[in-house]
Amino acid sequence: MKNSEIYAISILSDDCQGVLRDVSDVMASHGVNIVLAQASVFPAESEKKTSFIYFEFENVDNIESLSSDLLRLEKIHSVKTYQPLSKIFGKRVIIIGGGAQVAQVALGAVNEADRHNIRGERISVDTIPLVGEKDLAATIDAVCRLPRVSVLVLAGSLMGGSISDSVENVRSAGIPVISLKMAGSVPEHADLIVTDPIQAGVFAVMQSSSLAVFNIDRVRGHEF
Amino acid sequence: MKNSEIYAISILSDDCQGVLRDVSDVMASHGVNIVLAQASVFPAESEKKTSFIYFEFENVDNIESLSSDLLRLEKIHSVKTYQPLSKIFGKRVIIIGGGAQVAQVALGAVNEADRHNIRGERISVDTIPLVGEKDLAATIDAVCRLPRVSVLVLAGSLMGGSISDSVENVRSAGIPVISLKMAGSVPEHADLIVTDPIQAGVFAVMQSSSLAVFNIDRVRGHEF
Repeated sequence: MKNSEIYAISILSDDCQGVLRDVSDVMASHGVNIVLAQASVFPAESEKKTSFIYFEFENVDNIESLSSDLLRLEKIHSVKTYQPLSKIFGKRVIIIGGGAQVAQVALGAVNEADRHNIRGERISVDTIPLVGEKDLAATIDAVCRLPRVSVLVLAGSLMGGSISDSVENVRSAGIPVISLKMAGSVPEHADLIVTDPIQAGVFAVMQSSSLAVFNIDRVRGHEF
Repeated sequence: MKNSEIYAISILSDDCQGVLRDVSDVMASHGVNIVLAQASVFPAESEKKTSFIYFEFENVDNIESLSSDLLRLEKIHSVKTYQPLSKIFGKRVIIIGGGAQVAQVALGAVNEADRHNIRGERISVDTIPLVGEKDLAATIDAVCRLPRVSVLVLAGSLMGGSISDSVENVRSAGIPVISLKMAGSVPEHADLIVTDPIQAGVFAVMQSSSLAVFNIDRVRGHEF
């Protein structure tokens, strides 16, 4: 029976094109699904470069057999296993907006995440302070392309226009959106409006938690 | 001449194994280096699933020709282009430690990042509050496997033992480490020791900035 657990490995190989193709070929032959691959090359200034490629994958029948087949590839030097990033950094609360308010939401979120992580969960709080409708819209849209996002919090005083379109994209991707009470059309598109930034951060972490009893579906459209 | 600019695309395809192999085969034939691939499947409960795969790559001669060849693959429905995540979320300051202190470092870092991002840079501030030597050591070690990390800040009051080993791993990966002044051996391994958590966050963002005049190499071993 296929294993839906996520495995993580890194591979060191000679820097050559096609390593990802060769590795994904081996993985495909084992019926494995790659969910993440990150490649970097070092050192930057040397002629002979080494590739460090990190993979996460699922549907593994036999991890030892897979590792052996990978090591048989001519260009692969070593294979190392890890816990997947989802088990280490867990779900991510993303906070975007003006610096002062992002910092206050983060204050609430980090303190609430601490209470959950102490009890064995893993919740991260990730932020970027930005200004300007165009930059905010593009950045909020890009949240859909980040891994492991559970909630987005918009922390500002005036957001609307194309930012609201991006908010709808994020919600369509299955990520709920909490907005501070603010001017502009964004709050009308959010799942929840919160006045106190500390509480907004707390709500966001509670929503991310698999153990908490809070469910944003039950307060959708409410304002606190 | 090969283009070292990073491109980003997403691909929608039928959910089938081997899509990543087929795509990386096309990319290899164009001499392209894939640096990131993230795959997800939706919707979860339907029989007919769609794969959403996001790629970032470099060494592209002709992006239109590459996109055409990708669309020719039988299972690919669409190809969409984006700005890469490095241009949107930029460099990352990572803050790990006890909740109250992580929140204070984040306060300083987010406010400083706001000042930089207003002037066109992109710096993110990403945090996870945690407790316990074993969990902290594993999480700090995993920072080496996150993309785009520029600085690590350790925010606590007592850290040592295996956490210091992980600090050395992070530094070996080229990521400088700032530590709050605290008990335990970790500060001895850090590049910089800072007493005020707000200032620690500010220093971290200044180090991440390509425009700031601060360079941690010039204050290595100092205590503030």
